Amino acid sequence: MKENRIKIVDVRIHSIALADPPLCSSYGLHAPYALRTILELESEDGIIGISETYGGEAPAQALETLRPQVIGANPYRLTGLLSSMVEGKGAGTERSQMYLVPGENPLDTATRTYAAIEVACLDLIGKSVGQPVCDLIGGRVRNEVPFSAYPFYKHAGGGGEGDDVREDEYGVVLTPEALVREVKQMIEKYGFGSIKFKGGVLEPDLEIETVRLLYQELGPSVPLRIDPNSAWTVDTSVRVGIELAEELSGGGYLEDPTAGLENMAEVRRRLVAEGIMTPLATNVALTSFGDIPKSIELDAVQIILCDHHYWGGMRQVQHLANLCNVFGIGLSMHSNSHLGVSLMAMAHVAAATPHLTYACDTHYPWQSEQDEVVAVGRVPIINGCVRISDMPGLGVELDYDQLARGRERYKKCPYRKRDDEAEMQKHVNPNWKRILPRW
Amino acid sequence: MKENRIKIVDVRIHSIALADPPLCSSYGLHAPYALRTILELESEDGIIGISETYGGEAPAQALETLRPQVIGANPYRLTGLLSSMVEGKGAGTERSQMYLVPGENPLDTATRTYAAIEVACLDLIGKSVGQPVCDLIGGRVRNEVPFSAYPFYKHAGGGGEGDDVREDEYGVVLTPEALVREVKQMIEKYGFGSIKFKGGVLEPDLEIETVRLLYQELGPSVPLRIDPNSAWTVDTSVRVGIELAEELSGGGYLEDPTAGLENMAEVRRRLVAEGIMTPLATNVALTSFGDIPKSIELDAVQIILCDHHYWGGMRQVQHLANLCNVFGIGLSMHSNSHLGVSLMAMAHVAAATPHLTYACDTHYPWQSEQDEVVAVGRVPIINGCVRISDMPGLGVELDYDQLARGRERYKKCPYRKRDDEAEMQKHVNPNWKRILPRW
Repeated sequence: MKENRIKIVDVRIHSIALADPPLCSSYGLHAPYALRTILELESEDGIIGISETYGGEAPAQALETLRPQVIGANPYRLTGLLSSMVEGKGAGTERSQMYLVPGENPLDTATRTYAAIEVACLDLIGKSVGQPVCDLIGGRVRNEVPFSAYPFYKHAGGGGEGDDVREDEYGVVLTPEALVREVKQMIEKYGFGSIKFKGGVLEPDLEIETVRLLYQELGPSVPLRIDPNSAWTVDTSVRVGIELAEELSGGGYLEDPTAGLENMAEVRRRLVAEGIMTPLATNVALTSFGDIPKSIELDAVQIILCDHHYWGGMRQVQHLANLCNVFGIGLSMHSNSHLGVSLMAMAHVAAATPHLTYACDTHYPWQSEQDEVVAVGRVPIINGCVRISDMPGLGVELDYDQLARGRERYKKCPYRKRDDEAEMQKHVNPNWKRILPRW
Repeated sequence: MKENRIKIVDVRIHSIALADPPLCSSYGLHAPYALRTILELESEDGIIGISETYGGEAPAQALETLRPQVIGANPYRLTGLLSSMVEGKGAGTERSQMYLVPGENPLDTATRTYAAIEVACLDLIGKSVGQPVCDLIGGRVRNEVPFSAYPFYKHAGGGGEGDDVREDEYGVVLTPEALVREVKQMIEKYGFGSIKFKGGVLEPDLEIETVRLLYQELGPSVPLRIDPNSAWTVDTSVRVGIELAEELSGGGYLEDPTAGLENMAEVRRRLVAEGIMTPLATNVALTSFGDIPKSIELDAVQIILCDHHYWGGMRQVQHLANLCNVFGIGLSMHSNSHLGVSLMAMAHVAAATPHLTYACDTHYPWQSEQDEVVAVGRVPIINGCVRISDMPGLGVELDYDQLARGRERYKKCPYRKRDDEAEMQKHVNPNWKRILPRW
């Protein structure tokens, strides 16, 4: 029985940028670069635990302020020491809001920061004991974690600017037909078995047409989900729900059709009254434990999209999954533009979460090898799944040359936070504003 | 980055008996011996993980049936492999019942068996990596875990039979005055700062008098709890709640005054209508995740007594704690007659559970050094707390001579399950039956 005095002796916080295609959503337009933060925790004996989180100044600064508590800490205990960031009264506070993406919601700062540290601690522990992260947090219940294709309407190109401007294989996608083509390309390349389609961009009738075309082309065995990020009124949401009742019935869902739990609940009531049981999913109306009691009371949401990045880490996602199981709520997983470190963390927590009832979202197909910071290159997605291997920790290491390139891109990048509205104003219409509901 | 192929190569299941004093409750009378099971999981390199659970034939047999899955397993993964025992549809099944103690409820078999294996795996892992169990499951949030004194009315003696009959320091305790004396002895010896008093034994007026005397003698700073194990009608429960409004107000609670969630809810409504906010606690009306939605809907229970032994292990208790935090429900911890292995497991999960809002129950003071199977002897309770040290795993090892004595006692013991009713019939009244409600 040995004592293992593992101790963190260095913290490195890397702000990086990666090319991101001009993807459209009700928030606006993705900028040419997405910002991410890579965290490294190094132990006395030179083992390095890593994680990836939201980018820009605020997330890096939030991590920086914890440096004094992290240096010298035992990674097994650090999560307990910092637990007030995710537990206690915070759990009872409603903090969902409809205008900001989760990574920019200041009410999520503590849970986002904690999550980055928790994941890096788990990776460090896993690498020190030779065990995968999923097996440190309860043990895997699956080796293959299913992800959905995540098609967007988009402008031309693959992101980047100046002499770093990128091509992409998808081109302009602003019609139903183009979106079906995009989906087919993604299925061909990654083998996805379900589709999460980002709506809220074109007129609702065109988005209905898009889903119908997908259904015709892919058949009823491929679950279809549509997510307009709260762009619709209750009436429009109900109309879409009725018109797409068949298309969304086979394991699909209607995600955040409208803003706010009350409106979601009204959409639900009116659809059920029509005999339409399409579940409503969310990562906007409900983004924290504090929002759950009201949502249950109203039956506003039937599927929660978890995300360890802002729910407070892997163990909080497991708590959430258990709660969902208890209350008969489905569980899927939310994504933001990310690289392979996040993808593996998402896969590990999903692998150790029995009550994961839907394939996870991922933006990973929108990023490219050129920006990947993971040492062996892009994480494979095969048959729509990420495989959990026997590799210790998250199963990936950093490529420090690639990381340095990411930091360089970040330095050259003129912005320090995500602002999809500004990007729309720049490229589409200087007067563009996010309006909720738009239709 | 090493790979650690830790493997379980041996499973040992020890049925033991320990002297138990003739404690009274609404279930009847404790028999001269309590039955427990000690589980050992040994790894290829000779590290032994241990746990303690309910005793007698059924729990040992349930563990035995898992032997083929346990042998050869990696303890990091075994909990994932067996997760269907605690997750999945089971989580949605109501399984509380009012007549059987949790250890004898057949609907709890899977969660009880899983818990014993989970704890032994965590102990094995902790001992293999030199880390305490609480730090494997999220990290400690406290080093000192508070327990309550757990006074019972009792007959004379300290348990045991024949040439193994034991003396005890408490004697006969069947009046309010004797119970106050018993509590003072316990406080003197262990420094407890709160009192969980087992009622449901004498006439309610005598139990009210007992609580009043405790309050007079100990003052308002010592939280007082009374638990008649469902012995009362709704009317009696309300009457006791009103009469003890002041005595139970300072961090106290009224535990399982009456049987069933509906009755608990009615007691709650009527007390609140009187302006009495004494919370109702339970480990009878609600003993599984499946019972929680209805309890929340009815506001039947304001405090849940967790117990890793039958809730499905430490991580399930952490899920429960999170759920309680989300819904504003308090959390305490239930106990059954147990030895030091269970005490340490209870302390470790409590140490890694931020939302533990009340001191835990423990029967530990009712057991004696003579029966303890923990190598260094009885676990100290100082200032009412069990200290979590830096020792790996649960922080205790087995004394194999003591374990052998426990097995011998078990062999000589004429019964193979707990039956408090039979014991009452034997010693008090051959026609005694548990009647709910009795008063």
